Amino acid sequence: MQKLGSAEIVQLLLAITLMLGFGRAFGELFRKIKQPAVVGEILAGIFLGPTIFGTIFPEIQQFIFPSIGLVTISLDAIVNLSIIFMLLVVGLEIDLAVVIKQGTAALTTGTLGMIIPFIFGAAAAYFAPSIFGSQPDNLLIFSFFIGTALAISALPVIARTLMDLKLFKTKMGMTIMAAAMFNDLMGWIIFSIFLGLVGSSSHGGTVWETIGFTLLFTFIVLIFVRKLFDKSLPYIQSRLSWPGGILAFVMVSSLIGAILTELIGVHSIFGAFIIGVALGDSVHLSEKTKFIVHQFITNIFAPLFFVSIGLKVNFIQAFDPVIVLVIIVLGFLGKIIGCGFGAKISGFNNNESLSIGFAMNSRGVLEIVLSLVAIQSGIISEEIFVAIIILVLSSSVLAGPLMSYFTKDSRKYSFMDLIDSKSIIVSNYEKKDDQIKQLCKVASDRYKLNYDEISSRVIQRENLIPTGIGNFVAIPHAKVKINKPIVTIGINKKGLDFEAPDHQLSKIIILLLTPEDKNELQLQLLADVANKFRDKEKISSLLNISSEEEFMSKIKEELA
Amino acid sequence: MQKLGSAEIVQLLLAITLMLGFGRAFGELFRKIKQPAVVGEILAGIFLGPTIFGTIFPEIQQFIFPSIGLVTISLDAIVNLSIIFMLLVVGLEIDLAVVIKQGTAALTTGTLGMIIPFIFGAAAAYFAPSIFGSQPDNLLIFSFFIGTALAISALPVIARTLMDLKLFKTKMGMTIMAAAMFNDLMGWIIFSIFLGLVGSSSHGGTVWETIGFTLLFTFIVLIFVRKLFDKSLPYIQSRLSWPGGILAFVMVSSLIGAILTELIGVHSIFGAFIIGVALGDSVHLSEKTKFIVHQFITNIFAPLFFVSIGLKVNFIQAFDPVIVLVIIVLGFLGKIIGCGFGAKISGFNNNESLSIGFAMNSRGVLEIVLSLVAIQSGIISEEIFVAIIILVLSSSVLAGPLMSYFTKDSRKYSFMDLIDSKSIIVSNYEKKDDQIKQLCKVASDRYKLNYDEISSRVIQRENLIPTGIGNFVAIPHAKVKINKPIVTIGINKKGLDFEAPDHQLSKIIILLLTPEDKNELQLQLLADVANKFRDKEKISSLLNISSEEEFMSKIKEELA
Repeated sequence: MQKLGSAEIVQLLLAITLMLGFGRAFGELFRKIKQPAVVGEILAGIFLGPTIFGTIFPEIQQFIFPSIGLVTISLDAIVNLSIIFMLLVVGLEIDLAVVIKQGTAALTTGTLGMIIPFIFGAAAAYFAPSIFGSQPDNLLIFSFFIGTALAISALPVIARTLMDLKLFKTKMGMTIMAAAMFNDLMGWIIFSIFLGLVGSSSHGGTVWETIGFTLLFTFIVLIFVRKLFDKSLPYIQSRLSWPGGILAFVMVSSLIGAILTELIGVHSIFGAFIIGVALGDSVHLSEKTKFIVHQFITNIFAPLFFVSIGLKVNFIQAFDPVIVLVIIVLGFLGKIIGCGFGAKISGFNNNESLSIGFAMNSRGVLEIVLSLVAIQSGIISEEIFVAIIILVLSSSVLAGPLMSYFTKDSRKYSFMDLIDSKSIIVSNYEKKDDQIKQLCKVASDRYKLNYDEISSRVIQRENLIPTGIGNFVAIPHAKVKINKPIVTIGINKKGLDFEAPDHQLSKIIILLLTPEDKNELQLQLLADVANKFRDKEKISSLLNISSEEEFMSKIKEELA
Repeated sequence: MQKLGSAEIVQLLLAITLMLGFGRAFGELFRKIKQPAVVGEILAGIFLGPTIFGTIFPEIQQFIFPSIGLVTISLDAIVNLSIIFMLLVVGLEIDLAVVIKQGTAALTTGTLGMIIPFIFGAAAAYFAPSIFGSQPDNLLIFSFFIGTALAISALPVIARTLMDLKLFKTKMGMTIMAAAMFNDLMGWIIFSIFLGLVGSSSHGGTVWETIGFTLLFTFIVLIFVRKLFDKSLPYIQSRLSWPGGILAFVMVSSLIGAILTELIGVHSIFGAFIIGVALGDSVHLSEKTKFIVHQFITNIFAPLFFVSIGLKVNFIQAFDPVIVLVIIVLGFLGKIIGCGFGAKISGFNNNESLSIGFAMNSRGVLEIVLSLVAIQSGIISEEIFVAIIILVLSSSVLAGPLMSYFTKDSRKYSFMDLIDSKSIIVSNYEKKDDQIKQLCKVASDRYKLNYDEISSRVIQRENLIPTGIGNFVAIPHAKVKINKPIVTIGINKKGLDFEAPDHQLSKIIILLLTPEDKNELQLQLLADVANKFRDKEKISSLLNISSEEEFMSKIKEELA
């Protein structure tokens, strides 16, 4: 049986290690600065690919990431599997009930948010193909591609941005999610039509056969297979080992979907996606199972795919400023005008409509896959490919800050967002006031605040009504002149008397400072803290630590 | 860039789907009959491979699992990655502290349990190579291989068997685990020496260089890198997203280990294994992280590897009864005598010593990898390969039943082992006695017991002291003439008055029958149930169900 030799295995492992290592590292870095991880992962690929690493050390780069040979094929197979599983996860995130519940607003926003950018892109490409620097063989297909590439939003990026901004469960958030899900579903149908048009089907079917089979597949899976999954999942989960059985069931199902759509002549990922939608719709697929599938795939498989993008093209050589500008302007304007207008006529105010437009403007995996197919079929040039990747990157990067700016009044904070290891201090003061003062000092040093004012306010408040809430926790707090809430946490293993109702000394002292004008925010955060620190066992485990880092690591795990 | 075509992708996906689907299905089937899943997975491979599927439908089998071509190479790459990650998990399971704590008993058992079967195997091979049906080129290497193949135990299989039998946390269980861990570590060192001997190192190093580097690598990782991991894990977990960051860190680390050992000239999995040991040793690597890594790898990657074994050889053609018999007799006798004797002189009684011997007799992944290397290097014939796989299967299958027989007095039961969806009935009786009678009826019908006697005993006990424990739960119980405990659960949504201390009606009625002569077992199980049903929120979620299947599925998830 044919197999890889030792040298090839080393090469393959090296490639995967670098892709995964750099991908995740860049991804984490971007998360730190409140950006989508996918942006970091794509940049990691550009760094490892011909653009940077390959320009500086062309031989080493070609050794690790060769463009032909058994290692390349193996890597391609692994990337193919990665993207199938990734689309399964995207599908799992789609909740048909949400789409239906948000009704008209979502449909209006979603539809206009597709049609307008599609028209912008397709019209520009059809009437002025020269601004895209190319003389396409088939103008119709080319225009169709440009329209589609500008029209599809990135559901996972949008969901992430909404979660980061604590907007996920607001009315606006749900409308955006529903519109994005609708957009995604429609986008795939258009995508399959596109694939039919370019005739990537090597199975001899005509365009109309491919499209017909695709619609039939979608219909059967979403109507019948979805019900079948819903009926059989409790059975499967009760009979098979958990989570092993259900995990394998989910992945095998998505692979079967992938095989079927690949046979139809559409890309395999379409099948995985639709199976994901059908599976994710069942209430019997538990959050825990979704969590395990989701974590493994987004953290291990997804980076491999996103990094692989950058390996294909030299982004500097193929960078054409005019094409990039055209694509970005058309893409941004089309999406923001389309979605914003849709949201406006659905009853949202100006700021909200703009925010919805910025959110929906995020692009992601679908554009990338579409462009890969297009470049491989010779429909677009490397320059257009690079421009679309840059559209993906810039629209995703800008969504967060722009939305954040236009929604700053309606956002919510949670305790977990307000802490990091710098806001935790282990100490052993023996007086309550000293402990409080230290926490105020840390907060005021870090955020350049007036220490005297803060500490006197907190101590005053504490003397009025002590803030021990039991379970070894106290929450001294005050409203002060700041723009966003601040939390610092003191760990005092001896414990201090904050007069808790259970007469226990307080060992976790959480200083909570909130803006003066936001009464509700203070109440909400106090409730959040009290709620988080409900479970005595978990708190005992939190106290069993030896450093601030360790406390932070445990708090994330135990209370998240 | 070279890539797979659509037809090849279909072929690859088909191969993976069948491997994963059949592997997991057979694995689950074997778990159901209390056998190690790995046995089912290997048998699934034999079914899909040339032995059965290939004999009936040779063309289809060759189309899906061809022996040359790009798909074969891709599959080989994926299987290679699978086994690297699998060995990472095996490494994570090794707890150096346990090995050291169990001290002399474990060392004695582990050492004798290696030396005796090694001598049995090596001596037989050296002095009578003909009984193995072969005339080896290098008798020394051949004998060394046979000795090693018989001497290594399978840690994961042993751990699984001990958990199934509820012996994991007994003194005997910990001794077995420690001995098996020690055996595993030693086995790898011997394995690396073997690889040095066969000169599979294509890197020009001599045998002694390979062995030297291997020992150096092991030493550095277990001493320094282990400490480094322990120090940096809290930092990594507090700084990076959870569990994404740590997941990627664990996998990248194991890949780096794999690369280094492959470069040294040892198999890449050795590096992944040692890195796993070093990582798993840190108390900062949380159970939850291990759980996610473990679940995904053992349920998705491991089946791919185990199934792939069966694809390589026709197990019927290469089946030689004499060789199989020789290998099984030598393997069983060597291991059981060696370990049993070691246990005996460490102070265990006869039954315990025999049980330890049977447990340690389990073989697994190490033998398989070793044999793969050996067959590829031309050291052994297909017949010996098949015999060793049969040794792996039979020793693993027999470990459970044999241990079960010899330890039947010292085993423990837990509530979760005693229930399945057949033991749950939704009903709406309005009288307590009717509910109890129904549960007794179900239990006595299923296990052919005397219904009248059981129901009268339970009702009598209930009238004496009502068994409502609060939180909507009641536990009517009695001691009756049975060999092992029986549980049946009634769900009564209206609720019945079992006079619970919190004055709530009982909606989950758990009938617990235990053997007459085992007082402690009844107390232990009552405590287990009370403990499991402590959390009111979880119980409410359990009651929100519409079928027995669903209850079983939720109970697994919520209370496991």
